[in-house]
Amino acid sequence: MATLKVPPSVPSPAEDSEQLRKAFAGWGTNEALIIQILAHRNSAQRNLIRKTYADTYGEDLLKELDKELSSDFERIVLLWTLDHAERDALLANEATKRFTASNWVLMEIACSRSSHDLFMVRQAYHARYKRSLEEDVAYHTSGDYRKLLVPLVTSFRYEGDEVNMTLAKSEAKILNEKISGKAYNDEEVIRILSTRSKAQLNATLNHYNNQFGNAINKDLKTDPKDEFLALLRATIKCLTCPEKYFEKLLRLAINKLGTDEWALTRVVATRAEVDMQRIKDEYHRRNSVPLDRAIAGDTSGDYEKMLLALIGHGDA
Amino acid sequence: MATLKVPPSVPSPAEDSEQLRKAFAGWGTNEALIIQILAHRNSAQRNLIRKTYADTYGEDLLKELDKELSSDFERIVLLWTLDHAERDALLANEATKRFTASNWVLMEIACSRSSHDLFMVRQAYHARYKRSLEEDVAYHTSGDYRKLLVPLVTSFRYEGDEVNMTLAKSEAKILNEKISGKAYNDEEVIRILSTRSKAQLNATLNHYNNQFGNAINKDLKTDPKDEFLALLRATIKCLTCPEKYFEKLLRLAINKLGTDEWALTRVVATRAEVDMQRIKDEYHRRNSVPLDRAIAGDTSGDYEKMLLALIGHGDA
Repeated sequence: MATLKVPPSVPSPAEDSEQLRKAFAGWGTNEALIIQILAHRNSAQRNLIRKTYADTYGEDLLKELDKELSSDFERIVLLWTLDHAERDALLANEATKRFTASNWVLMEIACSRSSHDLFMVRQAYHARYKRSLEEDVAYHTSGDYRKLLVPLVTSFRYEGDEVNMTLAKSEAKILNEKISGKAYNDEEVIRILSTRSKAQLNATLNHYNNQFGNAINKDLKTDPKDEFLALLRATIKCLTCPEKYFEKLLRLAINKLGTDEWALTRVVATRAEVDMQRIKDEYHRRNSVPLDRAIAGDTSGDYEKMLLALIGHGDA
Repeated sequence: MATLKVPPSVPSPAEDSEQLRKAFAGWGTNEALIIQILAHRNSAQRNLIRKTYADTYGEDLLKELDKELSSDFERIVLLWTLDHAERDALLANEATKRFTASNWVLMEIACSRSSHDLFMVRQAYHARYKRSLEEDVAYHTSGDYRKLLVPLVTSFRYEGDEVNMTLAKSEAKILNEKISGKAYNDEEVIRILSTRSKAQLNATLNHYNNQFGNAINKDLKTDPKDEFLALLRATIKCLTCPEKYFEKLLRLAINKLGTDEWALTRVVATRAEVDMQRIKDEYHRRNSVPLDRAIAGDTSGDYEKMLLALIGHGDA
């Protein structure tokens, strides 16, 4: 369930473009107007606005926003305005760069998007970077991380509900054997996590829990400082309970001394049109504070307003 | 360049369906009529015939063919009649089964199809088998073969012409180091072969040849009995010179005592609409015998007629 609020009657892309043009005009920028428009249009509507803006003014809306805005507010407006596949391609590309490298972002894009959406990210990556996503991921990672991340980003999981219970049992056993032997990077563990459908994986992990007495993520917590283990646990969470995975990301981002705006922005921009309502519910349940209040307490200005609008707090 | 010959004026799908229905009627089957129609229609036309046949007679054309035909002739007519993505999904699925397992077929589908066509195979695999291609490949392979084949079948290579010469040099060096050290299954070797664009790989391998004095496939021939090395060489050939790869497959299939119909059928059914003309030229050059004469000498009956029609020998 999305939190994006689109008004019942939406102005035409031409009207929206004209208003945005006005928001950029003169000495100051009218940030409130930018939020009022862009934070309340869905993906198809934003794409149309970009197209109309380019056709009408001969300028790329994204470049205009880049010129007019700055810091965290700029980043969330730009990320949000992009189409989901372009946005994910950009986030994934950043995640393979030296100073912004992030195995978590790569895993998150690979595991929380639908199979078809992930494929669209790979297409957008070709178009934008003239290379393949897996090529950059493989080149910029090594060891266990490469072993896990390349199959994850190249996966095209089956999405039906069919579950093979015999297989669930045999693979739960394999997982338990490998984990008991601390062979966390074993190719069988990676094969199961990176190729099985989410429904099948869920059945396997339920059986694991029933048969061996612990949730698999508990058994993967032998060394809290081991970063590969933390990534494995996050992978499993992201595949089986994405709202819990995102809730935890938000919790850590907000509770951190000095707020992790990079993560906060990413989660809000990528989930507002997908499952942010469920993430908000989970956040409230887990932290006894509504997410909008937590965000309002930790951010400010136009950045705060944009975040709140996207999580459904602002007027549409 | 395809060898498929489509007549200048093609009957409507309804007329073709009616003729096929007649070919199945009564005691005998009219194989000549089946060849005359199906061997001279392109992929879109065959799909329309299947659809029209099902709409008109309430029967699946493929099931009818399966009932009426037998052995090698049946197999080539069925494979040919399928859409390329369905056909490859079927071949790949067979290649993961116990008695028909074939690492070569999996590699061939992964390396000789375009990135987009390979993705369509993965979609067709979902639809037909309710599982993902990589899931079955990973489950039914192990060791070095799994390490190589899973990244190959999940690849979505960039297809532009851009080449990075600095990268070509550095990766040629990596390949040479690993191969000199007999680390043929090294993850860097597999990363380069499975993720780089065909244009980039070609530049890398040209540099390898110039810099280190041998074509890479010569350096990979240290042990002619090593099956993994043979698969690696075939992978490189299939990625860089598919017509040479297919020529060799045909040569081995035909020269074999007792002809390898399985391979012969596969190559003809999958390449007739793609690059069979180039494969024929290469075959003639390499064997001093035209392919149609070689096929005619080694096969017979309707199977022979169908093969010859598809490689452009029959009248359209």
